[in-house]
Amino acid sequence: MGKKVAVVGATGAVGEAMRQVLQQRQFPIDEIHFFASERSAGRMIDFAGRQFQVKKLEAAAFDGLDIALFSIPQSISRAISPEVAKQGCVVIDNSNAFRMDPEVPLVVPEVNAHALKRHKGIIANPNCSTIQMVVVLKPLHQASRIKRVVVTTFQAVSGIGLAAIEELRRETRLALAGKEIVPEIFPHPIAFNVLPQIPQRAAFEDNLYTTEEMKMVRETQKIMEDDTIRVTATCVRVPVFWGHSEAVNIETEKKLTAQEAREILARSPGIEVVDDPAQQLYPLATDAAHRDETFVGRIREDESIENGLNLWIVSDNLLKGAALNAVQIAECLL
Amino acid sequence: MGKKVAVVGATGAVGEAMRQVLQQRQFPIDEIHFFASERSAGRMIDFAGRQFQVKKLEAAAFDGLDIALFSIPQSISRAISPEVAKQGCVVIDNSNAFRMDPEVPLVVPEVNAHALKRHKGIIANPNCSTIQMVVVLKPLHQASRIKRVVVTTFQAVSGIGLAAIEELRRETRLALAGKEIVPEIFPHPIAFNVLPQIPQRAAFEDNLYTTEEMKMVRETQKIMEDDTIRVTATCVRVPVFWGHSEAVNIETEKKLTAQEAREILARSPGIEVVDDPAQQLYPLATDAAHRDETFVGRIREDESIENGLNLWIVSDNLLKGAALNAVQIAECLL
Repeated sequence: MGKKVAVVGATGAVGEAMRQVLQQRQFPIDEIHFFASERSAGRMIDFAGRQFQVKKLEAAAFDGLDIALFSIPQSISRAISPEVAKQGCVVIDNSNAFRMDPEVPLVVPEVNAHALKRHKGIIANPNCSTIQMVVVLKPLHQASRIKRVVVTTFQAVSGIGLAAIEELRRETRLALAGKEIVPEIFPHPIAFNVLPQIPQRAAFEDNLYTTEEMKMVRETQKIMEDDTIRVTATCVRVPVFWGHSEAVNIETEKKLTAQEAREILARSPGIEVVDDPAQQLYPLATDAAHRDETFVGRIREDESIENGLNLWIVSDNLLKGAALNAVQIAECLL
Repeated sequence: MGKKVAVVGATGAVGEAMRQVLQQRQFPIDEIHFFASERSAGRMIDFAGRQFQVKKLEAAAFDGLDIALFSIPQSISRAISPEVAKQGCVVIDNSNAFRMDPEVPLVVPEVNAHALKRHKGIIANPNCSTIQMVVVLKPLHQASRIKRVVVTTFQAVSGIGLAAIEELRRETRLALAGKEIVPEIFPHPIAFNVLPQIPQRAAFEDNLYTTEEMKMVRETQKIMEDDTIRVTATCVRVPVFWGHSEAVNIETEKKLTAQEAREILARSPGIEVVDDPAQQLYPLATDAAHRDETFVGRIREDESIENGLNLWIVSDNLLKGAALNAVQIAECLL
C-alpha cells in the first residue's frame, strides 16, 4: 500500500529534486501534496504526468498524511515541524533546525539507518557536505578507527537554490563581457572566484569558523556516533553549478594502505570508486551532477603521518546531499 | 649603474608579467633583450615606451649579459641554463628544472634570501603555490616550529599560460550556451568544474600524488631549510583566471593563538592580513589579482588538535607566484 506524502518547499531547487527522486525511485504514493511559501502558492507543478497546485504551507494541512519531506528555511521548520509530527505525519527535515537535537535522529541510511528506530516524528536530513563525507568515512572507520579529519570543500552554488544558480550565470556573463559585477546573493562575486564563506549571511560563529564548517564537525560525530572523531573544516564556495567536491585528509588508528581503502570503499553501499590516475580518472563535479552515487578517488597514503589517507570525494549536493538522502530515509520508514 | 638583462619566454603569461614588474619596480636596466621560441621570434613588444624585437633563444646570445629571467619549459631550461651561467650571466629560472638540485638555491626573498650567497650562476624560482604558502609559514615557524602542514589548493588557470586563460573563456561561453565542451589544454572541462589534477599532463608520481603536490612537499622543506616539516597536499585547478587560494592547516610545536598568529603575520614582510569575519572580509582571488602581496585571513585555531591553526592564503600566481618573486631575487643580486 502507498503512503500519503507531502513535499514542502516544493518549488525550490531541493524540492524540485525531491519530486524527481520520488518519481524515479517509484516511491509508493497513494496521495501527494505540494506546499510552498505564500509567494509560490497557486503555481502548478507536474508530478508523474499529472498537474498539482502548490498550496500555502499550513500546519493543519498535514492531518492524515504519513510522511512530509521538508526543504524550507530553518526558522519555519522549527516552528511548524513539531505541530506536523503531533498529527502523526513524520517530518524528514532538510534544514538545520533539529539536526543537533538529541531527541532527533540525524540519518544517512548507509551509515546509521538504525537510528531511525528511535524517531519521535521528526528526522533530520544532514548537511550536504557532511552526507557525502560520512558515506565514505564510515566503512573506513569500521576498518580502522578514524582519529582526525581535515576537510576542505569545493561547494556548488545550487545548494543555496535556484536564485544562486542564476546569479552565477548572470555574473559569469558580465565578467566575460568585462562589466562590473554587483553580487546579490553571495557576499562577493562568485564568477571566476572562490569564496571561503558558507553560508552567504550570518556565517561566523564565535570561534571564527562558519556555521557550515561547524556542521561538518558536529554532524559527523553525531551520524558516526563517535564523539572521539576530531574534525576541522574549511568550507569554500566555488563557481560550479552542481556537485560538491571535497579534499579529505584522515588519520586512522591502524595503517590502511591506499589499496585496502580502495577495496573497502568499492564494496561499500552508495559509493563508486573512480581512481585511475594513469587514465586521468578521478571524481569530477560535472560527472557527479544528476547522479545518485558518492564518488571517491585520488586515494593515496598521507606520507606526512604514520597512518593517514587523502581522499577526493564528490557527490551531487541536491541529490545525495539533500533530496535523495531524504527519500532514502523515507524508504527506510516503509 | 644598470644591468644588462634578458627576459626569456618574453611572450608568455609569466614573461609578460616579468616585463611589467621590471618596469613598475624601476629595475636598473642598461640594456634589455627579449627571447622566445622560434614561433614567437620576430614579434615586437613594448618595454618602457620603446619597441623591441623578440629574438630566438640561443645560448650564445647571453655573452656579456648580467641577469636572465627564464620562463620557459623545463626541458629547454635544463639544456640551456648551464651554458648561459657559464658565460657569466646569472639565470633566475622559473621552471622545475633545477629546483631540487642541491647546488642551486631555491629562493623566496622574504624567507631565505641568504641562500642566494652560495649561487653558482643558476637560481631557481619556486613553484607558485609553494611561494605564497612559505611567505606565510616562515614567520609562524619562527614563532613556533611547524610540525605538519595539510594544504588544499584552489589554483587559477593562468599558471599554465595565455592559452589556458582562453580555454576557460571559450569553455565558459559554450557551457552558458548549453553546448558541448571539448577540452584542449586541460584533461577535462574546467568551466564550472574543479579538477584535482595539476599539471594537465604526465601529472602522477608513483605514490599517486601529482608532481604539483610533491613540489609543495619538497620545495617547502628546501626553502624553509627544515626537512622535519611534514607536508601533505591536494592541488586542485579551479575556474579562476588569476590568483591561487589555499586552505592551509598547520600543527605547531607550541600553541599559537589566532590573535598571536594574526599579529605575527601583520608585521611580516610581503604579507597583508585580511581577516574581519564580522565584515565578511577575507582574501579573495579576484582582489589579489594584479597585486604584489600575499594575503592571509580566516585565521582560526584548529580545535581538532592541541596546537593547530587554519589559514586561508591568496596571492597572484603570476606575480608573487612567478614574475615578482623572480624580479625580487634579481633585486637581491644587485
